[in-house]
Amino acid sequence: MATLQLASWATNLTYADLTAPVITAAVNSIYNWAGCAIGGYAQDAPHIAQATTQPFFGGPPTSSILGYNGSIGGAYADAQLAALLNGIASHIDDYDDTHLETIIHPAGPVASALLAVAEWQGPITGEEFLTAFVAGVEAECKLGLSVTPEHYDVGWHITSTTGSVGAAVAVGKLIGLDTVQMQNAIGVAATQVVGMQEYFGSMTKSFHVGRAAQGGMLGALLAKNNYTSSLQGLEAKYGWLHVVSTRENATAYFDQLGSIWEIEKNTFKPFPCGIVLHPTIDAAIQLHNETVQQGKDVLSAKSINLQVNSEVLILTGKTDPTTGLEAKFSVYHAAAIAFLYGEATPAYFTDDAVNNATTIEFRKKVNVTTDDAQFSTDQATVTIVFDDGTTLEKHIEHALGSLENPLTEADLEKKFLDQVSRQIGETRADRANVAFKGIGNMTDIGQLRTLF
Amino acid sequence: MATLQLASWATNLTYADLTAPVITAAVNSIYNWAGCAIGGYAQDAPHIAQATTQPFFGGPPTSSILGYNGSIGGAYADAQLAALLNGIASHIDDYDDTHLETIIHPAGPVASALLAVAEWQGPITGEEFLTAFVAGVEAECKLGLSVTPEHYDVGWHITSTTGSVGAAVAVGKLIGLDTVQMQNAIGVAATQVVGMQEYFGSMTKSFHVGRAAQGGMLGALLAKNNYTSSLQGLEAKYGWLHVVSTRENATAYFDQLGSIWEIEKNTFKPFPCGIVLHPTIDAAIQLHNETVQQGKDVLSAKSINLQVNSEVLILTGKTDPTTGLEAKFSVYHAAAIAFLYGEATPAYFTDDAVNNATTIEFRKKVNVTTDDAQFSTDQATVTIVFDDGTTLEKHIEHALGSLENPLTEADLEKKFLDQVSRQIGETRADRANVAFKGIGNMTDIGQLRTLF
Repeated sequence: MATLQLASWATNLTYADLTAPVITAAVNSIYNWAGCAIGGYAQDAPHIAQATTQPFFGGPPTSSILGYNGSIGGAYADAQLAALLNGIASHIDDYDDTHLETIIHPAGPVASALLAVAEWQGPITGEEFLTAFVAGVEAECKLGLSVTPEHYDVGWHITSTTGSVGAAVAVGKLIGLDTVQMQNAIGVAATQVVGMQEYFGSMTKSFHVGRAAQGGMLGALLAKNNYTSSLQGLEAKYGWLHVVSTRENATAYFDQLGSIWEIEKNTFKPFPCGIVLHPTIDAAIQLHNETVQQGKDVLSAKSINLQVNSEVLILTGKTDPTTGLEAKFSVYHAAAIAFLYGEATPAYFTDDAVNNATTIEFRKKVNVTTDDAQFSTDQATVTIVFDDGTTLEKHIEHALGSLENPLTEADLEKKFLDQVSRQIGETRADRANVAFKGIGNMTDIGQLRTLF
Repeated sequence: MATLQLASWATNLTYADLTAPVITAAVNSIYNWAGCAIGGYAQDAPHIAQATTQPFFGGPPTSSILGYNGSIGGAYADAQLAALLNGIASHIDDYDDTHLETIIHPAGPVASALLAVAEWQGPITGEEFLTAFVAGVEAECKLGLSVTPEHYDVGWHITSTTGSVGAAVAVGKLIGLDTVQMQNAIGVAATQVVGMQEYFGSMTKSFHVGRAAQGGMLGALLAKNNYTSSLQGLEAKYGWLHVVSTRENATAYFDQLGSIWEIEKNTFKPFPCGIVLHPTIDAAIQLHNETVQQGKDVLSAKSINLQVNSEVLILTGKTDPTTGLEAKFSVYHAAAIAFLYGEATPAYFTDDAVNNATTIEFRKKVNVTTDDAQFSTDQATVTIVFDDGTTLEKHIEHALGSLENPLTEADLEKKFLDQVSRQIGETRADRANVAFKGIGNMTDIGQLRTLF
């Protein structure tokens, strides 16, 4: 109620509601602020910030908006906006990637920032690009491990809260920061903590990723121009690790930098929705296929009964989603469509699909039992009870797309071509397929966009 | 050490360090991400975000950089950059304003966002502007009260963590959001939690204010274009109040909206440094004057002994500041210059002033005792012991600039003219003085900048 209460009050406030002392105080506040704003400009900080952001003052659009198809503006923007838009676009479907130990989706914040800067500040070779990318991903994943699970459990969206640091490290690497500058870049990035789980199921979830990319990039650019920050931004008493978590173990994880590679543990999503739904979907699709093989009608299912980890209901417990984005966080929707249709492609997470009558009916047949002793977040057992009293059951030990049961290269290509061709057509999708696969060999990442 | 360790590692990483599986994983991660970025662009969210940020794609510079004096770029930028730069400039001197119950500096995030939007989206009358400003200040201060002191105690910089919400509410009000849109605007603002106390004494402290202004503005603009967020962004289990604080009491404080006005409790700083230093400075200046009146040499002081609240050392305990910005968070510096020179103007918080030999010598004479039972953060007792064994003591019950002992209108004007004339000259300062005092009567805030 608090939000509504505040919003409603603010919406309805009029000038007539203000008393004379309020108006006096307001004028004085603005007056005093204006003095501070004018006088304070003499300092280095506003000058450095202005010099740093000068490229965004109507400068040339340097960086590509990857999925651009002609509806608004242009295919290129300045680097900050490109990072925001690519960050949003890359996460909006919840179809990206997952570092399962932390539930970080690593590429979004890092790559969105990095590509934008590489195009702008190039020529950057493919090797330089990959190096910087890895630096960023290791940074965010190690940082995430250092505060797992306490940080996530309190409600932070760990992809973006660590992603700004990942983006800063990646961009900082690309633009050649020295160590002190890199420390400052991490500081500016770390003080921008974007993303809470409350926004799962709305557009704001993907905003987190774009904003983290922007914030991290900005940190690196400011640091390059000697904007001062803290050199102990992570470990200080009032720094990131202690402010956003009740426990941290950064030293142990940072000790493993370069020996245990987190990028290697990155996994790719087969289904465009919350990762904790994947074992349920995997099971339900298999049960669909078994049902059909047995000559049964899937519509004859009386109930769909899930046994899962409690995180499934915490993160994806929406019973009555009304939009596609909400459906990505509804275990009821996910189980229903996977069993009904035997697949869980983006087509089943649209606003239309969510409001399909049969799907709505089947969502109500889904019952969820949680058992953390028996089920990790990667596991599920799904039992179908049919009208004739028979049952089918499937247990998933490791969901499709997990480290133990990963997508094949062919699966990954199929997913890419499906996603890309729907947006920019098959011809360009085929060219993009080649271009991105060959990124490590490029002599100038700035040419990437011209290849498809 | 963790930051240095990470920064050093990232700085030194080369492509040759990457193993073959690392490179494969990196390429696959980027490849998969690019697919997501291209495919995901079909969603509404990237389109809305692009439409929302379209004015920043090299659009006309609409919004003034208040202190601009010709050294870089132009006097106008787009609204996002103007908000950032004015936010930074307005806070960099730590000379702005304070809502003492929360230690929020209220005007910075709200006015920086609001002026930029008012100039861009106008004509906006002075009354409309003031109404929106008050809405924003009440929003941030009530929110701050709801989590005081727990939120601040963990290390957050409450000015910016609440300021993004204040800016969103102010801008949302100005551009006429409806209630649901305002809820969404608050949501986008609340999920961007910028600012930790570790950055006090560096340029990043004022970045917090500028970034909060940007983030809140962006939230309002996105919400206007129906970017979806949460309608319970503050009170939800994984929303702002619970994620950033161990306790909250928003309902009680929001109940007082419009009956108890927080803007009325705003105070203006007489000294350009951390607010908890003000009672010490007040006392030390008075003791300087008494010393001189008694015909004594201030240089004959053997020790300067302070009794203060423990927050003074927590927030301003820097013993050996090396920059002006650090000195703003050094009780040793503050006590030394106030007693030595009988004033604490911006001139005593420059890099040069910090490195003055006499000042350095006197910083070492400052001893601090904390006693929370006897001293609130607004109180201090300073005792000078002279070489001849005599002493002088002064107790401050309410520091100059507090609600109980506020700056007079004349004091405030003196401060304004001093700040402004140093940056843009006396003639323009006089005109600015008139312009900002008359802001409530303007028919178009967009004309403000032309008046000085």
